[in-house]
Amino acid sequence: MHCSVPYPADHPFPIENLPYGVFSTAQDPEPRPGVAIGDCILDLAALTRTPLFAESPVPAPVFAEVRRAGSRESVSNLDAFVALERSSWRAFRRFLHGILSREEPLGDDVLVPRTSPETQMHMPITIGDYTDFYASYEHAFNCGSLIRGADKAMQPNWRHLPVAYHGRASSVVVSGTDFHRPSGQILASPGDSQPIFSPCKRLDYELEMGFVSGCFCLSIGAQARLTWHHMQIYGGKATQLGQRLSPQQAQEHIFGVVLLNDWSARDIQTWEYVPLGPFLSKNFCTTISPWIVSMDALEPFGVGQYAHEPALLPYLEHDGGVNYDVDLTVEIKADDDEYHVVSRSSMKHMYYTLGQMLAHHSTTGCSMRPGDLLGTGTLSAPRPDGLGSLLEKSKLGREPFGLGSRKDMTFLRDGDSVRLTGSARGKGYTIGFGHCEGTLLPALPLLD
Amino acid sequence: MHCSVPYPADHPFPIENLPYGVFSTAQDPEPRPGVAIGDCILDLAALTRTPLFAESPVPAPVFAEVRRAGSRESVSNLDAFVALERSSWRAFRRFLHGILSREEPLGDDVLVPRTSPETQMHMPITIGDYTDFYASYEHAFNCGSLIRGADKAMQPNWRHLPVAYHGRASSVVVSGTDFHRPSGQILASPGDSQPIFSPCKRLDYELEMGFVSGCFCLSIGAQARLTWHHMQIYGGKATQLGQRLSPQQAQEHIFGVVLLNDWSARDIQTWEYVPLGPFLSKNFCTTISPWIVSMDALEPFGVGQYAHEPALLPYLEHDGGVNYDVDLTVEIKADDDEYHVVSRSSMKHMYYTLGQMLAHHSTTGCSMRPGDLLGTGTLSAPRPDGLGSLLEKSKLGREPFGLGSRKDMTFLRDGDSVRLTGSARGKGYTIGFGHCEGTLLPALPLLD
Repeated sequence: MHCSVPYPADHPFPIENLPYGVFSTAQDPEPRPGVAIGDCILDLAALTRTPLFAESPVPAPVFAEVRRAGSRESVSNLDAFVALERSSWRAFRRFLHGILSREEPLGDDVLVPRTSPETQMHMPITIGDYTDFYASYEHAFNCGSLIRGADKAMQPNWRHLPVAYHGRASSVVVSGTDFHRPSGQILASPGDSQPIFSPCKRLDYELEMGFVSGCFCLSIGAQARLTWHHMQIYGGKATQLGQRLSPQQAQEHIFGVVLLNDWSARDIQTWEYVPLGPFLSKNFCTTISPWIVSMDALEPFGVGQYAHEPALLPYLEHDGGVNYDVDLTVEIKADDDEYHVVSRSSMKHMYYTLGQMLAHHSTTGCSMRPGDLLGTGTLSAPRPDGLGSLLEKSKLGREPFGLGSRKDMTFLRDGDSVRLTGSARGKGYTIGFGHCEGTLLPALPLLD
Repeated sequence: MHCSVPYPADHPFPIENLPYGVFSTAQDPEPRPGVAIGDCILDLAALTRTPLFAESPVPAPVFAEVRRAGSRESVSNLDAFVALERSSWRAFRRFLHGILSREEPLGDDVLVPRTSPETQMHMPITIGDYTDFYASYEHAFNCGSLIRGADKAMQPNWRHLPVAYHGRASSVVVSGTDFHRPSGQILASPGDSQPIFSPCKRLDYELEMGFVSGCFCLSIGAQARLTWHHMQIYGGKATQLGQRLSPQQAQEHIFGVVLLNDWSARDIQTWEYVPLGPFLSKNFCTTISPWIVSMDALEPFGVGQYAHEPALLPYLEHDGGVNYDVDLTVEIKADDDEYHVVSRSSMKHMYYTLGQMLAHHSTTGCSMRPGDLLGTGTLSAPRPDGLGSLLEKSKLGREPFGLGSRKDMTFLRDGDSVRLTGSARGKGYTIGFGHCEGTLLPALPLLD
């Protein structure tokens, strides 16, 4: 497809991608929605002020007038766009293809340099609720084997339902946000009965994807051209309490996908998690990549879903459901100030599809809202070099490995940075996800 | 204290209480903040339009101009008021005492009949994140005894930290919201390996209190008189990622308390909860009472906290921490259309104080926001008539009990209603909480 913004072949943000994010610049420090195209950002707020926007199927206030929920700052983000439905997202994508493929290039009034250090990325949406699944068979098997042995690795429920826990929305941050090593209760030695209060000694990452739900208003005609008023009335609706979605319905209400690092404090987790699950061990920081890749961009990279043995209950059957073949990489920067690859996996290693996870979430009638974030759980590949966490890679810390000049790597040390990247290839272009990156700062001093 | 609005002695909403809620009337269907006083509601949005408001220490837009986060409806609620700090809440309480204790009665322009069927209550705040604790020793002991026997009842971590899980904010509803019996995966018989999809057969309530956090901006001087602009800059702040609160600090940032029913699907819970905790079994509906009782109203009812044996780690010690002596009652309306008392407990049966729970939540640096809701967990009293759930009262369903004309009560049946009430007494007046009530509707039909 022709694009008036030039970029080399294999660029992560070609015209076939068009991921959405929220950015600001030194010149205009107000965060606003944009679309990544080559090394530029198409400023959607600025675009609404040009004649080009006359043909947009989505009204201008969607990109320029929405307050950030939960705060009284009047910045704009992608909340209103995400709260539309798939027909609108598709229509807007066609509109973007149209204005980017014209012969006449777009001007500086709407194109901003993306890679300038003065361009900052922000949280793309206000997250309603955040839920994290545990959907990779390989990860569940690896963890179960390390803890209980290979013959008892899988819990009885795992092959029947997508296991998940509610996470913490307030501590989800955008790539580049550094954070302090958490402190909490841990056992100094495994058999101890009295815990100590200490900085976490087993800080881990988890290689995941996150997906964002859109509007659940099932009654709007697919072709309805939305006006701002229309959207205020019909758009941005949550499911009603008690409403249940099939995997097919659920799939239609997914806006897009990000990289997600569910940083985990393993020693805090081990002590606290019985019987109600992980709490403080996973609520201190969750990092997402700034660009949300749309389901329409991902669609060409669909591959078969897992064979489910035993068969799933009918409410979880996903006719036509697919996984997505997105290559994923984890890199760590440690003592020698260079990133080293520690794992290569893929988004296709999910036993349950995105639609199955979202449908299961709605089973009991839990209200799902536009802007909810759902994590897939750690995506480990069935290969020794495809492990999505240090817990697995270091075998619970028992088998240190080499990482550049560091010869005894197990868990993260202060100053270490972790970077997740993702890309889908093989159709003549690349769909990139950008970076999901964070640096571990030392623990804050203990209270007096 | 004199009050120009008349009410009988022992009324749940005397001038010493002044709980905050959001209401609407047939005449004015726009939800808006109000204060319960006797059988009236003082309409705070209307009050801002009268000369009386000139003396208010809180600016008018706090009650009249805030959008509901997560939605694009422009209704007002208590988000902005909750996002202030304790000094402002106290100053506004003094202001309310002043205008209510004048000789001259307030007029119909600001007083609305509270008990009229046309007066409806709404969600008082937009909940940021919802977390549920497990802080009653008696409840944890009872559940542990039923499942593992009395000698193994308590898990090793329970006496060291307030165990909790992240809940689902989107399905928290206000009293009076009926809901459908959830369906999900359960085991038809305990030893089965293949689950079935079925309406829940063990639907339970949980008698809890919820508490709401306010602003965490620790740097504003306690005497600062807030302007709207000031509040936009300094008010409504979350804790920074990594910031940790002591129990004493945390206590100062609690806005108030509600009754909370954490409806639970026990059979879904049993099958799904290993290893990540309860998920669908507790995310289909959580009911709160509409009136938030302030910590200032509760303060006279403080009683000693539990003796902690073994001693808590220093970060959890709460010097001067108290529990609150609030009588709690659970009633069920079943076959004979009358409410029958099934349990009498008290808010004082918490092993951990509210301050300890909130402080623990911040331990690893999890960002706490104004409007977060934290549940105490089921509050069972150390008496056979003080059990806060049907799981305990029916001994896992094994020991049916009489409930009016129903002689074989175990778990809830379609059409049953559950009502929680609470009141603090003994200082010459009553602090009431109103009702926390809901009716169980039949399960929705299964998908084709």
